[in-house]
Amino acid sequence: MTSFSDISDRLGDLAIEVPSWAYGNSGTRFKVFGSPGTPRSVEEKIADAATVHRFTGLAPSVALHIPWDEVDDYGALSTYAKEHGVALGTINSNTFQDDDYKLGALTHADPRVRQKAVDHHLECIEVMNQTGSRDLKIWLAEGTNYPGQGDIRARQDWLAEGLSTIYDQLSEDQRLVLEYKFFEPAFYHTDVPDWGTSYAHVAALGDRAMVCLDTGHHAPGTNIEFIVAQLLRLGKLGSFDFNSRFYADDDLIVGAADPFQLFRIVVEVIRGGGFGPDSEVALMLDQCHNIEAKIPGQIRSVLNVQEMIARALLLDTDALNEARNAGDVLLANEIFMDAFYTDVRADLGAWREERGLAANPMRAYLDSGYQEQIEADRAGGAQLSWT
Amino acid sequence: MTSFSDISDRLGDLAIEVPSWAYGNSGTRFKVFGSPGTPRSVEEKIADAATVHRFTGLAPSVALHIPWDEVDDYGALSTYAKEHGVALGTINSNTFQDDDYKLGALTHADPRVRQKAVDHHLECIEVMNQTGSRDLKIWLAEGTNYPGQGDIRARQDWLAEGLSTIYDQLSEDQRLVLEYKFFEPAFYHTDVPDWGTSYAHVAALGDRAMVCLDTGHHAPGTNIEFIVAQLLRLGKLGSFDFNSRFYADDDLIVGAADPFQLFRIVVEVIRGGGFGPDSEVALMLDQCHNIEAKIPGQIRSVLNVQEMIARALLLDTDALNEARNAGDVLLANEIFMDAFYTDVRADLGAWREERGLAANPMRAYLDSGYQEQIEADRAGGAQLSWT
Amino acid sequence: MTSFSDISDRLGDLAIEVPSWAYGNSGTRFKVFGSPGTPRSVEEKIADAATVHRFTGLAPSVALHIPWDEVDDYGALSTYAKEHGVALGTINSNTFQDDDYKLGALTHADPRVRQKAVDHHLECIEVMNQTGSRDLKIWLAEGTNYPGQGDIRARQDWLAEGLSTIYDQLSEDQRLVLEYKFFEPAFYHTDVPDWGTSYAHVAALGDRAMVCLDTGHHAPGTNIEFIVAQLLRLGKLGSFDFNSRFYADDDLIVGAADPFQLFRIVVEVIRGGGFGPDSEVALMLDQCHNIEAKIPGQIRSVLNVQEMIARALLLDTDALNEARNAGDVLLANEIFMDAFYTDVRADLGAWREERGLAANPMRAYLDSGYQEQIEADRAGGAQLSWT
Amino acid sequence: MTSFSDISDRLGDLAIEVPSWAYGNSGTRFKVFGSPGTPRSVEEKIADAATVHRFTGLAPSVALHIPWDEVDDYGALSTYAKEHGVALGTINSNTFQDDDYKLGALTHADPRVRQKAVDHHLECIEVMNQTGSRDLKIWLAEGTNYPGQGDIRARQDWLAEGLSTIYDQLSEDQRLVLEYKFFEPAFYHTDVPDWGTSYAHVAALGDRAMVCLDTGHHAPGTNIEFIVAQLLRLGKLGSFDFNSRFYADDDLIVGAADPFQLFRIVVEVIRGGGFGPDSEVALMLDQCHNIEAKIPGQIRSVLNVQEMIARALLLDTDALNEARNAGDVLLANEIFMDAFYTDVRADLGAWREERGLAANPMRAYLDSGYQEQIEADRAGGAQLSWT
Repeated sequence: MTSFSDISDRLGDLAIEVPSWAYGNSGTRFKVFGSPGTPRSVEEKIADAATVHRFTGLAPSVALHIPWDEVDDYGALSTYAKEHGVALGTINSNTFQDDDYKLGALTHADPRVRQKAVDHHLECIEVMNQTGSRDLKIWLAEGTNYPGQGDIRARQDWLAEGLSTIYDQLSEDQRLVLEYKFFEPAFYHTDVPDWGTSYAHVAALGDRAMVCLDTGHHAPGTNIEFIVAQLLRLGKLGSFDFNSRFYADDDLIVGAADPFQLFRIVVEVIRGGGFGPDSEVALMLDQCHNIEAKIPGQIRSVLNVQEMIARALLLDTDALNEARNAGDVLLANEIFMDAFYTDVRADLGAWREERGLAANPMRAYLDSGYQEQIEADRAGGAQLSWT
Repeated sequence: MTSFSDISDRLGDLAIEVPSWAYGNSGTRFKVFGSPGTPRSVEEKIADAATVHRFTGLAPSVALHIPWDEVDDYGALSTYAKEHGVALGTINSNTFQDDDYKLGALTHADPRVRQKAVDHHLECIEVMNQTGSRDLKIWLAEGTNYPGQGDIRARQDWLAEGLSTIYDQLSEDQRLVLEYKFFEPAFYHTDVPDWGTSYAHVAALGDRAMVCLDTGHHAPGTNIEFIVAQLLRLGKLGSFDFNSRFYADDDLIVGAADPFQLFRIVVEVIRGGGFGPDSEVALMLDQCHNIEAKIPGQIRSVLNVQEMIARALLLDTDALNEARNAGDVLLANEIFMDAFYTDVRADLGAWREERGLAANPMRAYLDSGYQEQIEADRAGGAQLSWT
Repeated sequence: MTSFSDISDRLGDLAIEVPSWAYGNSGTRFKVFGSPGTPRSVEEKIADAATVHRFTGLAPSVALHIPWDEVDDYGALSTYAKEHGVALGTINSNTFQDDDYKLGALTHADPRVRQKAVDHHLECIEVMNQTGSRDLKIWLAEGTNYPGQGDIRARQDWLAEGLSTIYDQLSEDQRLVLEYKFFEPAFYHTDVPDWGTSYAHVAALGDRAMVCLDTGHHAPGTNIEFIVAQLLRLGKLGSFDFNSRFYADDDLIVGAADPFQLFRIVVEVIRGGGFGPDSEVALMLDQCHNIEAKIPGQIRSVLNVQEMIARALLLDTDALNEARNAGDVLLANEIFMDAFYTDVRADLGAWREERGLAANPMRAYLDSGYQEQIEADRAGGAQLSWT
Repeated sequence: MTSFSDISDRLGDLAIEVPSWAYGNSGTRFKVFGSPGTPRSVEEKIADAATVHRFTGLAPSVALHIPWDEVDDYGALSTYAKEHGVALGTINSNTFQDDDYKLGALTHADPRVRQKAVDHHLECIEVMNQTGSRDLKIWLAEGTNYPGQGDIRARQDWLAEGLSTIYDQLSEDQRLVLEYKFFEPAFYHTDVPDWGTSYAHVAALGDRAMVCLDTGHHAPGTNIEFIVAQLLRLGKLGSFDFNSRFYADDDLIVGAADPFQLFRIVVEVIRGGGFGPDSEVALMLDQCHNIEAKIPGQIRSVLNVQEMIARALLLDTDALNEARNAGDVLLANEIFMDAFYTDVRADLGAWREERGLAANPMRAYLDSGYQEQIEADRAGGAQLSWT
């Protein structure tokens, strides 16, 4: 039986990247609600992200979205981040908000638009060179809404071509991670709908091309931990976009909708070597705090991941394997559930205090006055949002 | 065997209400794309809707959404519509875009917000009194995103209370139709998620409260034609919101995603007495033309419904019942499919010409110059959209 | 904050009915695997069920399925059960294994078959009269596989007629509970596919007709706790069939697939008055132990329900309501999760010991030698299964 | 615009393999209904399959399932088939009905069971050598029902190992096709759940390993035609198992549930070079006629495929590409739908008569007396079924 003290050191390996856009406003097609204190500049978003890290010790880097986070001087932005205690992380491209991309970007029937989309990614690589980012994350909003609208097959070839051109521009220490998504904003077909498609493309590209798994981008009933295990086995799991969902790509707080699923995913991450100092798997959040407070929403998210990592590390794998080898279905399941049902929260509080953090980061943040301060400071100006 | 001439007269009973908002811009949470010629006023939306009717003879009325279609003088608007050859139809309320409604409207924990939402509906009834509309359609975007966030049960009681107050203000010739929706924009729970909930509420309200069935508002795999049959049997099917979907509430053109499903729905509508001069079931569209041309999108939609009605009327119900009674599964299915696979398009073209319409309304519209005209005329101003 | 001692008494209210058929073999359409010690008679099934109760104190009654559990003398069977420490409970009818029911039973196009199905239910009521059972549970496997195959609408009317005849034969202290199921074994349509249909029928029948909710009988993504809350509000939740599922009607151990969902369901049961001495909601299991040991599978199931009841009782509803009224989404969710994440297992062990039970009923059972005994005793004869 | 005479020759390329097991009884876990005339021997199944071919000209080969179709002398069986006008086709292995396989076969934790499963496949290759079959089709019922039950990751490695051993025994003109399935009979995880997993394995094996796509084995909402296009692009689409479904793996008649989906699939097959004399993609049926007549069920199935192939060949691809290149969403969709809505049945009737077949094969079969004959001839003996 594993005890909390056994896992104490390994817990220190956890680092979760947060997205700059989580601190801006977001919503549904029906409405984007604003909230007091929302950032009006990239710097304010980074300051908020750094606050999450200050209280939790879990979020040392911030992902950027281009052009949402476009600035004149990325070196200065990087310095600003460092001064606030965090680093700039993954660079995310955006090919879904320009009028030219209405019917596709890397998969558009018009070569001019495809070239434009490739060029945008090359600019993103340029940003990476300045920020020192390792990963270029590509999520493509591309697809079609009506049967017959596009040539599904030709679009795959165009996609392969564009990705190849982009990949060739990466330096030796940079990676391309290709995200897949089941549906939305395209409704009939998406050009990278599943892990198989992403895998086929990155396998063709080379060693520094990897799959990005967003936990909200699957068909109903999909066993996500299986995909995690498979991609780790194939050496192609590059990064996670953590969030949770009940129905579609709800982008809720990770662990909120189905905590047991998060546990199962994390178990396979650890089982497959995706966690720890030797792993290159990036753990990121990608969520939308449509109705809840944003900074507390992010704090809750990284704490949820930390708690699940702790539970998963507590899993008694020796006993589990023994039960599996004996074909004892119920005992294996019981050992698995034992870890999940263990309440790690008090131990984690003590663990944090040993490391100079508040036992309860959420309370500490709420008591800190930060929220009141930004609500007062950020009175004027335009709040940032997706669009 | 039924022939086209047998159904010719009944086809004339078809009238489909179109939504004013289909003519404005719409999109996803990622982007709303604009397009040249998009209306900048309620009047321009009605003019476009009237154009659909002029070319198809199928869309004699236009539904309004309040406050999207708020005007000072509804009498004048009604006259304007009549002059263009159409009538004002159903009034749709909107309780999802005011900041107060972030956590609910008729189901908000705060009585002040609930009263505000009730008051909005009473204003809608006031509009109905001026436009002469029969139906108040209530779609509630309400629900919660996180387990525990709200008191699911209490919200039902608040909802019942609010609906009752609203219902009491209707005149004898007015109806309340309550729409249900599986999810979105709320992700964990919606307050009217299924037909059962809508039915329980309208049954409690009284004879002039009915259910509105939107074809895109169900869980994956739901047999919608069963719900149609059941609601007709219970005397509670008030209206349809037609559209189609592959995954969630995609709001695609009706019949585009699964034409055979539309056929099955229409068969049950006819079977259950929901079509024809004696029926009070309203057939409406509720779609978003995110990437396709809007007026042609609406023309295609009403034609799709017309074609399916024709196929469904062609169903040889005598032979079908005989096969059913004989327990001949394959023959019953074959007779059913025979109607679906019948190509009614040429006959419908001739039918239209007999009635002074173009055989091919889509071509006639595209050749008419209307689109070019509005693109030229509507150069300045702000294009209308949902938000 | 609620503590375990506060809920200690209420935990004693828990009683879960187990199904006789869980102790026989079951499987999928591909294979039914046997296992040593499986009962060969109704009496042996009851003895196994009584064993579950002996070790857990949670399962005081056994549901029967007719004709699977048909015996000559139900009085004697009842006495046998009592001598083993349990009572006979709900009587389940079966209209899906006779050749006549291939295309329907209560909804068959042939009045002779409908009458036969009604008669079967009257025989079940006769059994109830002898066993002293309160509930007649009706699950109908009826529906069609192919569009057009049957008259969906007429079948509803036949169903209503048949149910009415059956209902009329119940005595004053007996109830009819009507189960619904999304699909399987019928694939295109089922005659009672959703709670709305079941509700419409039982509402028409009368006060002693109720809905039975099987947790595995819904479309993907359905919010089951909402249905629980709604049916309790409408006064029509008669009973549960507990189990769990990942995809379809998997009939796995309750709480195994999504423990948090079970928690949410149980919270709404308690919230709505469905738990405790004044409630008439029956909590039953309906599971298939296809690959795991059967008696331990049932023990695990009742313990899972007990643990979730404990967590749900621990919910700090005062603090929760305060957070809800304040519109504090994250705090309300946190309070909710606090109860779920509380590890109640040690407290429950102590609670059991205070009541003369083993702290760990599963270990106690495995150490008891019962399994070895039945494997030795039940060497010959035909093991019972569904078919 | 393409006319029927343009496609007349290409229609002659269509050949659909039928499964021997479709002629035996099948059902659900609740009940397997028998029917008069059901085969009692492999020979009778082949005779029935040959009858389907005699009336339709579309089904020249029969797939076998081992051990269901085990015989002493496969040479004699092959001769028997030839004498009846058909050939023996794909050999299907079966590792789901032996008690040893309860917890896995190629993925079992016990090396002895894995070896047994490998050996079974080697025996299947031996059968192929005798029957002259090209394809070994492997569908694995393997997986787990409970989280923690098995080591998902290790099972992948065992699977790869077993497949490799099997693949090595194939001769140069034989192929291995690996089927994937979303769920059932395993409920928590399946070892080959999606096309990505199958693709990763067959890509590792070599050129003669391919993916088998069963149209009923996907998550709800999956765009199957996309997978078809992708696998053809990757050169890895080996074969189809055609059927249709509304919810799970319903195994209904192909084209029955969603004819438009079948059309879209067939369009991508043709688009990607998967149809015609140069294609090695095998088109097979895999269906269960649980309630409908079996031989007519198979006739309907092959006719459905033929009709859809005809519609898909009629697609005006030049006009379609022009519309796509112009970005005309509605026109492209209209051209696509034009082909789908074309009623090809009369033309196909004439086409058949030109080739010496009955215009309506279903009527011809029903009038032939074959069914009455087998019902009389096959009075005694045990009807064959899956189990």
